[in-house]
Amino acid sequence: MTTGRLSGTVRIVGAGLLGTSVGLALRALGVDVVIEDSSPANEKLAIDYGAGRAASAEDSPNLIVVCVPPDVTGKVVAAELAANPHAVVTDVASVKASVLADLRARGVDLSRYVGSHPMAGRERGGAISGRADLFVSRPWVISASSSNSAASVQLVENLALDLGAAPVRVPAEDHDRAVALVSHVPQLVSSLLAARLVEAEAGDVALAGQGLRDTTRIAASDPKLWMQILGANSAPIARVLHELADDLSKVVVAMDDVDAPGSLATIGRVLEAGNRGVERIPGKHGTKHTAYAQLVVIIEDKPGELGRLFNEVGEIGVNIEELKLEHSPSAQVGLVELYVLPGVADRLGAELSARGWRIAG
Amino acid sequence: MTTGRLSGTVRIVGAGLLGTSVGLALRALGVDVVIEDSSPANEKLAIDYGAGRAASAEDSPNLIVVCVPPDVTGKVVAAELAANPHAVVTDVASVKASVLADLRARGVDLSRYVGSHPMAGRERGGAISGRADLFVSRPWVISASSSNSAASVQLVENLALDLGAAPVRVPAEDHDRAVALVSHVPQLVSSLLAARLVEAEAGDVALAGQGLRDTTRIAASDPKLWMQILGANSAPIARVLHELADDLSKVVVAMDDVDAPGSLATIGRVLEAGNRGVERIPGKHGTKHTAYAQLVVIIEDKPGELGRLFNEVGEIGVNIEELKLEHSPSAQVGLVELYVLPGVADRLGAELSARGWRIAG
Repeated sequence: MTTGRLSGTVRIVGAGLLGTSVGLALRALGVDVVIEDSSPANEKLAIDYGAGRAASAEDSPNLIVVCVPPDVTGKVVAAELAANPHAVVTDVASVKASVLADLRARGVDLSRYVGSHPMAGRERGGAISGRADLFVSRPWVISASSSNSAASVQLVENLALDLGAAPVRVPAEDHDRAVALVSHVPQLVSSLLAARLVEAEAGDVALAGQGLRDTTRIAASDPKLWMQILGANSAPIARVLHELADDLSKVVVAMDDVDAPGSLATIGRVLEAGNRGVERIPGKHGTKHTAYAQLVVIIEDKPGELGRLFNEVGEIGVNIEELKLEHSPSAQVGLVELYVLPGVADRLGAELSARGWRIAG
Repeated sequence: MTTGRLSGTVRIVGAGLLGTSVGLALRALGVDVVIEDSSPANEKLAIDYGAGRAASAEDSPNLIVVCVPPDVTGKVVAAELAANPHAVVTDVASVKASVLADLRARGVDLSRYVGSHPMAGRERGGAISGRADLFVSRPWVISASSSNSAASVQLVENLALDLGAAPVRVPAEDHDRAVALVSHVPQLVSSLLAARLVEAEAGDVALAGQGLRDTTRIAASDPKLWMQILGANSAPIARVLHELADDLSKVVVAMDDVDAPGSLATIGRVLEAGNRGVERIPGKHGTKHTAYAQLVVIIEDKPGELGRLFNEVGEIGVNIEELKLEHSPSAQVGLVELYVLPGVADRLGAELSARGWRIAG
């Protein structure tokens, strides 16, 4: 008995962040999920975490979700198509045209392969970072080809819908151009910026604020994975990078002689274009946890304070969905960011205040 | 009667985000605050908001905080020094050497001027965005000069401490080099990246994820203010930008011919340097994240569990330095990542296990 659109058995190959998250979400809907990983330790962790069960000889999946690194995606998809002659196979790789080209080069019949790409991820990978709500409200690109039956495309769309994502049908080439702009170039730019910190004075880096933290957050991403992604989508990335390099060289000229006529205007144009560009990004800007309300509590920086806080939150009867602790030795206080369902945030804030807690924001 | 270090009257000139936030925080400590703005509407808003009172002829401030845009900071500081012959004057401008140079050019006696710069801000400006906790746990740079008395530097340090900030003494030139790296170049890079979105297909921008949102968040900042900041610190910014442009041109060459020998290695080096750079950004305790040992505890996903866990951690007598909660609304368990000093991690793990907690690794 499932509460979603999918039924039967779904087989997930690859128990990293994405595979584990797909498994957690489908299990919550009651779907029978098999999860497999080439690493037995990863597979065991994902199963312990509740993302599915181990494979058995009797499995007959009707949908297979391949969640392995991009450079082996083609090979694994081909193997799964061959081993499961009645199943539809999809993948979640961040590039779509190169996977298709790989499968064509292998002479694979593409009618049961429907490429897809959920626009969700985290800079931390692995089963341990998996979460059932990873895909909620995120676009899920489905790059169907002309050889796909309507039913097989619908099956992958049902997967996206069951995971709370918004399916968007985008041809592989258009997808790759879009992710070059909104994902691959930002990754490179973030890495290039963070790379400037390597040789910097420690005292200089110590003055880092939220702006630097935000712009360099994704620079912490896995280089091996990203080398594969960037290498597989080089042409669309190069087009955006050339434009960026042209703009940057104009700014460098302006900064080299800021008093020259037109220099400040050049800088101003870039800042204003940045304003216009960021306004085009749909939805909320800059908030990390759009689904939750945030409450910041200031606590004394000593053992037991967190216990006292969470005990009282428990007494109030509110569940914490996410939390972050910010604290600094010189301030003698810590900032605990609590993320809760929006409907209970006001009550929690009021009750904590009434109990003497300092609420900061 | 005040509860902080400052006493007497503090005069704030400029009722924008920073001036209003300073006023709100000092008023909360019971300090007598005068707040003034060249715009009567701004001034009234800040006063209504609780950031201070209007000036009167009898005011005799002992500390004046100049919170006006960088291009008029020198002029306003000079005027305040002349009008208040016994007061110490500080400012909060994001550049320090150019303010000093401006004051020297005006022939001002610098003994009562102590430049400073709180490393705090928001991409939204104005009195309305002011908040008393804006400076809590943030570095506050104090750029004293040799002509300052110890008492005047101490007074500005007391201001920072009263606002919950961590005062750091940094000479003006070092400050400007540091902020070029950790603030000004990130601003330009974020704007350059967001500018690429202006002409993009709407469907492409619609695929934006958290990575793009984070890297472009500060591209929403005020262009007029940032033109002044960047213009006043052009030499240190240009040095960083030249290095960035060199790195970028190598990446462009690699992306233009990704199959050429060495191309992927070039990309890999940038990604790895990005990893190393982002690791240098201090954790909340001013040390690297890697300085802490990690312990992952699996908890039931229900109210009160966090309280029970942190209570027991408190009983064990271990302080949590950082923590993260990973949990997925539909999973039956949550993963709590505890970061503690390496010397106590084993004991904490053993004692939590003995009390029946599941430790994941």
